[in-house]
Amino acid sequence: MSPLLKEIRHDPLLWLLAFVPVLFAAAKLKPEAHTLLFIMSVLAIVPLAALLSHATESVAAKTGDAVGGLLNATLGNLTELVIALTALAAGQYMLVKASIAGAIVTNTLFMLGASFLLGGLKHHVQEFNRASARTQAGLLFLATVALMIPSAVSQADSSAAAAFTQILSLGLAVLLIVAYGLSMLFSLKTHRELYASAEHAEEGEAPWPMGLALTTLAGVTVLVALVSEVFVESVQKAAEAFGMTPAFVGFIVVALVGGAAEMASAFSGARKNRLDLSVGIALGSASQIALFVAPVLVILSYFIGPTPMSLQFWPGAVVMILIATLTASLVTNSGRSAWFVGVLVLMVYLIFAMTLYLLPPRVV
Amino acid sequence: MSPLLKEIRHDPLLWLLAFVPVLFAAAKLKPEAHTLLFIMSVLAIVPLAALLSHATESVAAKTGDAVGGLLNATLGNLTELVIALTALAAGQYMLVKASIAGAIVTNTLFMLGASFLLGGLKHHVQEFNRASARTQAGLLFLATVALMIPSAVSQADSSAAAAFTQILSLGLAVLLIVAYGLSMLFSLKTHRELYASAEHAEEGEAPWPMGLALTTLAGVTVLVALVSEVFVESVQKAAEAFGMTPAFVGFIVVALVGGAAEMASAFSGARKNRLDLSVGIALGSASQIALFVAPVLVILSYFIGPTPMSLQFWPGAVVMILIATLTASLVTNSGRSAWFVGVLVLMVYLIFAMTLYLLPPRVV
Amino acid sequence: MSPLLKEIRHDPLLWLLAFVPVLFAAAKLKPEAHTLLFIMSVLAIVPLAALLSHATESVAAKTGDAVGGLLNATLGNLTELVIALTALAAGQYMLVKASIAGAIVTNTLFMLGASFLLGGLKHHVQEFNRASARTQAGLLFLATVALMIPSAVSQADSSAAAAFTQILSLGLAVLLIVAYGLSMLFSLKTHRELYASAEHAEEGEAPWPMGLALTTLAGVTVLVALVSEVFVESVQKAAEAFGMTPAFVGFIVVALVGGAAEMASAFSGARKNRLDLSVGIALGSASQIALFVAPVLVILSYFIGPTPMSLQFWPGAVVMILIATLTASLVTNSGRSAWFVGVLVLMVYLIFAMTLYLLPPRVV
Repeated sequence: MSPLLKEIRHDPLLWLLAFVPVLFAAAKLKPEAHTLLFIMSVLAIVPLAALLSHATESVAAKTGDAVGGLLNATLGNLTELVIALTALAAGQYMLVKASIAGAIVTNTLFMLGASFLLGGLKHHVQEFNRASARTQAGLLFLATVALMIPSAVSQADSSAAAAFTQILSLGLAVLLIVAYGLSMLFSLKTHRELYASAEHAEEGEAPWPMGLALTTLAGVTVLVALVSEVFVESVQKAAEAFGMTPAFVGFIVVALVGGAAEMASAFSGARKNRLDLSVGIALGSASQIALFVAPVLVILSYFIGPTPMSLQFWPGAVVMILIATLTASLVTNSGRSAWFVGVLVLMVYLIFAMTLYLLPPRVV
Repeated sequence: MSPLLKEIRHDPLLWLLAFVPVLFAAAKLKPEAHTLLFIMSVLAIVPLAALLSHATESVAAKTGDAVGGLLNATLGNLTELVIALTALAAGQYMLVKASIAGAIVTNTLFMLGASFLLGGLKHHVQEFNRASARTQAGLLFLATVALMIPSAVSQADSSAAAAFTQILSLGLAVLLIVAYGLSMLFSLKTHRELYASAEHAEEGEAPWPMGLALTTLAGVTVLVALVSEVFVESVQKAAEAFGMTPAFVGFIVVALVGGAAEMASAFSGARKNRLDLSVGIALGSASQIALFVAPVLVILSYFIGPTPMSLQFWPGAVVMILIATLTASLVTNSGRSAWFVGVLVLMVYLIFAMTLYLLPPRVV
Repeated sequence: MSPLLKEIRHDPLLWLLAFVPVLFAAAKLKPEAHTLLFIMSVLAIVPLAALLSHATESVAAKTGDAVGGLLNATLGNLTELVIALTALAAGQYMLVKASIAGAIVTNTLFMLGASFLLGGLKHHVQEFNRASARTQAGLLFLATVALMIPSAVSQADSSAAAAFTQILSLGLAVLLIVAYGLSMLFSLKTHRELYASAEHAEEGEAPWPMGLALTTLAGVTVLVALVSEVFVESVQKAAEAFGMTPAFVGFIVVALVGGAAEMASAFSGARKNRLDLSVGIALGSASQIALFVAPVLVILSYFIGPTPMSLQFWPGAVVMILIATLTASLVTNSGRSAWFVGVLVLMVYLIFAMTLYLLPPRVV
């Protein structure tokens, strides 16, 4: 286990792992201290997400490019998936949906915008691979259409409309997963040369041995699930204590916590003038959530939730996802970036965050 | 008439012409066999549309570029126009509007997407003329705005709102026809060099002599009108028998039948790596329906329909047209294509088709 | 004062200044002649706006590039700001909002479209600086999002929703002003080389001496304020006399009057094949109104209006702003233009103008 310990010693982020046992002890001893449990669960998820991400990459590095890319693409948002599954099992569908929408918007706007800004503050003008950004933006656009149609088409609230929305959501979920699978066939197999510069994405971090990676993957996933349970239980109560609306918590807080590890990689890539990496992580992660995590949750809701979950979102969330996708598509179109592009994208995110923070609870 | 007979002998699609007399006999003998009449009228329209398209091109080839282009552009969607006129005369405004919206969406998404996919399966990366695609996308965007504004602005259902919508629709119809006329002045006269590679669009098929072409044009138009009458009468009843919603029939079935001949040309162009041709047919046909067929129907509704028809569409149809236009604009922007672009575009179409198929009838 | 008199003698537009004293006399003698007062106030505002614009540029030319650019950018829409402030003080919030929305739409569509058309009628194909157009379009997009969110999110009409909209509007106003400030830092300081060809924007007109420029600036601003008062008082009554809806007056008439001086510069630039200048004026002016004038009005409404003004617009206006921004973004994307692009953009404007002209008054 020495590479793991060595990594923990060198990476201050991983020192937060100390919060994992502390959290479990606190949850046993003081189950009603929601604010404390919420803060500690956030602090515990961040290093676990980082470990999960490193373990996935290590397995991916050993298994060859195609399988590795597949693994990386499938497990890359494992943290978000586990958190959402925990909320799904608890029947908190509003939190699940808010966290899906929030993860798409946060990855597309905050992660991309902050990468452009941080990179742009150090480098005058940065360039990145347009072709790859375009495919990701296209996938996001497809997912946005799928999330938009149930709300756009069905306006009545009758039971016929509810049944229609449910069966439509299941069909859309299958279509999205098929599209996601074909996108991997395209980018990993038939047209991989278009994605050239994203290849050395993870260079610099030495991969772990296979055994260690697999053990870490399994063990840390269990830990994330346990921590998520405390997180999901405490988040709403804690939010009230902080004066946050439920919409703000699901959209902003959960999304930022779940994506912390990827953000660290994206921002560090931007500072090193490897903007391809940052754009790839941001848009890749957003489209993965929209085309893989969300449909999987819809399908799993038939098995683990109290009732099936639809893909019908709150109209405000649909508008935000649509704007986020359009923004990503407009700013990545030229393949060039400067600091002000980052400011523009972050401003759109700030508008959303402010709106959700101020939103009266019942309006949602 | 030998070129006509020779063509019929060599093109298996034209053997379907046998269904034309059979259909008329059946309509006389068994007027209540809606499902049978529907299937036979579909099978009869397809070869007639192909003949119509060849006759138009033959006339166009003889009359010189400017007049020919004009003729081609004006008569290119004659099948759709005749079907819609028949439905208009029957007072079936919902079917007329659904078939206009469906033809725009089907040409933009299905014809374009399937061309990209079929071409991409044979050729690794394909290129096409961006400038010409951009003008077509711009025209489509203009038409979308015109179709969107009546629904977006008027929310009340009072009689004042209805009068407003009607007079606005007439004004919009005139504007769209003027824009369409100016677009032909632009592409056929002042800036024809921008459309260079689309010039040899129809090479390979030998044009017919003028007399034959004109006779075919006149005779086949009459036949299409007669077949359309049976089609329009039987389509709704047949749809119920197949379990299809009226929206699905108008949007998907009528649009696919009406555009069958053009689709054959577009797909064959894509396989031969002449994607300019495919993109030109798909977007040109969609913008022609939006800027010429739809406004002409509004104006003619003052003369042949029971009451004037407006340009106000069902909001779901407007959303679909808007998404189709945005999709076309995004994917043609780069001037390059690979198979996955086709998958993305087709997926958007599939989402629409699935939604309309599942839609409870009263929601529309 | 000789440069001022010399300019007045050479520029027939400035002869309209004669209407300023005539207007004040008429307003005293015949305060109920609304139609006459309206026409004369329009004729008086146009030359004042031209003087204001020349005076601002003269001050800007003397104070060095950074401060000058700042001044130019801040005072460039002084006419619109003064008209809107007068309407704000009179509590005519609908007119204020309609004139903000109208100014954005008119600058983006009419000024840009007419520049493309006028330039294109003289020059076959024109090119302009894409990078600069892209930043302006990005700013406009950001402002559109800010104006869209209050309407998109809040659907209820309760008092909680009203309070939410008001505090959100204030927050959005601050964000927009910050974004506007950062955009000037970007275009005037850190990345000014991207805006290279727009630099000689005002060459050809000799700047006035500092004293004259400042005196003109102060004096003419006072005159514009006085004329605006007559204009705002008479415009609604006059509109009724002409059969125009209030929405048409605010959106189209006020916007065309307020922007007359800038339009003259933009059109003359386009005819001289300096399309960079035209695009810069049109989009720059639109984004300035959206990101500076509108937020300043919201903030000032806390001090000078009867009640605070929100950024929540009539949904139809939001749709029009959104379409205008999308149109600008699509047509400036290629950096090339021909006459038909101008036609397309003007057609979108005509659709809006016709809709507003026909709109039954109560629907707004």
